Amino acid sequence: MHAIEKILARASGKDTVTTGEIVKAKVDFAEVNDLYLQTIYSFYEMGGKKVWDKDKLCFVFDHYAPAPTIKSAQIHKEMRQFVQEQGLTHHFDINTGVCHQVMPEAGVVWPGMILVATDSHTTTHGAFGAFGTGVGATDMATIMISGELWFRVPEIIKIEINGQLPEGVMAKDVILYILGKLGADAAVYKAIEFCGSYVENLGVAERMVICNMAVEMGAKTAYMVPNQQVLEYVKARTNRPFDILETDPDFKYAESYVFDISQLSPQVAVPHSVDNVVPIEEAPSVKVDQAFIGACTGGRVEDIKAAADLLRGKKIHPHTRLVVIPASNEVFLEANKLGYVEDLIKAGATFSTPGCGPCLGAHEGVLASGEVCVTASNRNFPGRMGSTGASVYLASPATAAAAALTGHLVDPRTINKGVE
Amino acid sequence: MHAIEKILARASGKDTVTTGEIVKAKVDFAEVNDLYLQTIYSFYEMGGKKVWDKDKLCFVFDHYAPAPTIKSAQIHKEMRQFVQEQGLTHHFDINTGVCHQVMPEAGVVWPGMILVATDSHTTTHGAFGAFGTGVGATDMATIMISGELWFRVPEIIKIEINGQLPEGVMAKDVILYILGKLGADAAVYKAIEFCGSYVENLGVAERMVICNMAVEMGAKTAYMVPNQQVLEYVKARTNRPFDILETDPDFKYAESYVFDISQLSPQVAVPHSVDNVVPIEEAPSVKVDQAFIGACTGGRVEDIKAAADLLRGKKIHPHTRLVVIPASNEVFLEANKLGYVEDLIKAGATFSTPGCGPCLGAHEGVLASGEVCVTASNRNFPGRMGSTGASVYLASPATAAAAALTGHLVDPRTINKGVE
Repeated sequence: MHAIEKILARASGKDTVTTGEIVKAKVDFAEVNDLYLQTIYSFYEMGGKKVWDKDKLCFVFDHYAPAPTIKSAQIHKEMRQFVQEQGLTHHFDINTGVCHQVMPEAGVVWPGMILVATDSHTTTHGAFGAFGTGVGATDMATIMISGELWFRVPEIIKIEINGQLPEGVMAKDVILYILGKLGADAAVYKAIEFCGSYVENLGVAERMVICNMAVEMGAKTAYMVPNQQVLEYVKARTNRPFDILETDPDFKYAESYVFDISQLSPQVAVPHSVDNVVPIEEAPSVKVDQAFIGACTGGRVEDIKAAADLLRGKKIHPHTRLVVIPASNEVFLEANKLGYVEDLIKAGATFSTPGCGPCLGAHEGVLASGEVCVTASNRNFPGRMGSTGASVYLASPATAAAAALTGHLVDPRTINKGVE
Repeated sequence: MHAIEKILARASGKDTVTTGEIVKAKVDFAEVNDLYLQTIYSFYEMGGKKVWDKDKLCFVFDHYAPAPTIKSAQIHKEMRQFVQEQGLTHHFDINTGVCHQVMPEAGVVWPGMILVATDSHTTTHGAFGAFGTGVGATDMATIMISGELWFRVPEIIKIEINGQLPEGVMAKDVILYILGKLGADAAVYKAIEFCGSYVENLGVAERMVICNMAVEMGAKTAYMVPNQQVLEYVKARTNRPFDILETDPDFKYAESYVFDISQLSPQVAVPHSVDNVVPIEEAPSVKVDQAFIGACTGGRVEDIKAAADLLRGKKIHPHTRLVVIPASNEVFLEANKLGYVEDLIKAGATFSTPGCGPCLGAHEGVLASGEVCVTASNRNFPGRMGSTGASVYLASPATAAAAALTGHLVDPRTINKGVE
């Protein structure tokens, strides 16, 4: 069996599971974000009174924090009331950050667990060797009542990534490259294991970027074997015991791919699809109105550092905005301590409250019709970041920072070499 | 003549002016914020082609920055286009702050000038000995075309404030106290001069707080004789020569009031009127959902310091939010350098982008129905900060911070004495 199958087997009280089988598995932790007030209504409509385990469910206010409208304020209010009535142990209000960042920080994510959230990017937690997946309101209400959910044991795709990234190229470029090669429907209801020499020694932040965007191929979940960095990260945040379930040597993957990234260029997903990917050398040098660095894909300290390193002592282009939204307050404080926040503000950046920000067009940098945005976030479908008339280019934080500096989509590796 | 009259006389090319006279005065600087796209339409409808002086008009994006909606993004886009087409020297985009903070910082405010903006709180600039006043779109379009505007020479009210404030009581408490005593209609189309021993040595930030809220009494403009702190502030930011116009000793004020603030308590304007003011001892100990420190009344370094001093090493109440929005990026950087940002975030505060924030219910902390907010901002009318079913209590930043800490409206002076 694969580690992912062993996770599902253990959680459903079985010795073995097979691909395509439906299992009823215990969920170790569940999360509801502030887009999903409906989960509370569904919970009561389905007969719920008390949630199955007050230690295992949390609400995170990240999509609309701080509340930009009366409606979102009302949603937060009703959710807070539920949290208090249910006596939930964990709650992440407007002063925390994006769910996929604050849950690992809070120690509620660990290898071998099943984490379900009302957010498609829950695949992120494969970075920790967790089975993370996103669901809608009815499934979540089922979990809130019973602590369990049906899962179809997924086919598993192996994506081996080898080599060492060239300077100025980032994890975001790697996953965009793979997305471009395999397509947005490459893994619909399948699981993806990322492995290979590149992954083995990869930092937690970069692992999260790659697993985060696995869902852009339709993946049910993503997986990486936890490495030393992951173990240190998790052990620093929770005393919970856990064991690493290992994939059997004879396990047969449904599909396998091998990529070498040692010659990779920065990549760009041009409008209007996540898999419409070209190397920066082939991307159009469009005029850029806004660059965005932040949220659950591109808002970690490493991402902010890449921008600060590129913009320190410089000024962004007068016709271009740079919106920076750290993934969490912990990230903000760390980036601040390292001087990156000051570097970026002095360069002309606009910081806003940790959370999802304009990634989904909710607030904090929504795009107007005709505008062009280069973003370190994860989706570029029409209307995703505001007007359906805007154009969104997905890229690395370095490429976003280079766009802010020059006012155009350019190769970030040219910036500090004076060849732009 | 009064200094205010001398400003109007000089700007209209006259030797003398008298109360009630209509003069056509040259405007030294004008500002349009992102609520007033209509000014551009009016400008063209009234036959405008080029603005009268590209060095004397600016746009500030503060009410909706970064854009929380597609509509506000479109407004910003049209305004940027106008700024570029007109070649305006000064422009304050989403990476700056509130107009009343960023204009003085940029050196476009000086003693004796006439400053007109599409914002009622333009009275703020009386702190610098400037004639500052707010207008609507048609008046602003007139200025944009001609550089001039009609003014009725206002009656002038003298408000003398004497004494030294007790510890824990702030400038905001002083102006709330005066508002409570004189009422919200005390100065409709009149000017207010603030003077007295308290004002004479007052810092720039505190002077701005008091002049800012003069408009809550209906004042056309506010005035304070520039003191040493003002002269240093202005000279550090502009090389422009200016002279201080002095009020003649025989000038007769329309009304005069004298206040002694040496025994003043923290003050609170309870819902739903700015002049519904009681000392904190008589205020109801209501449960507080949100505290807000920020914007053009309460978002300066001094305000953030008051909150940091009160909350350092503590945690805010788990049922209360604390939204902090510095008045500008310059303020943010200074507060950050002094450690206040970290202090407040560690205490549980939510920072958002410098600007007006939730003061006008636009975004970044809008209130739900039934919620209670204690705020360092300037208005508490029904619906001002979101739902018409919310209740807003105006108070000092210290009182707002104390509310965040305890979850109730309390006297901030009790916090560090352990008597709460």
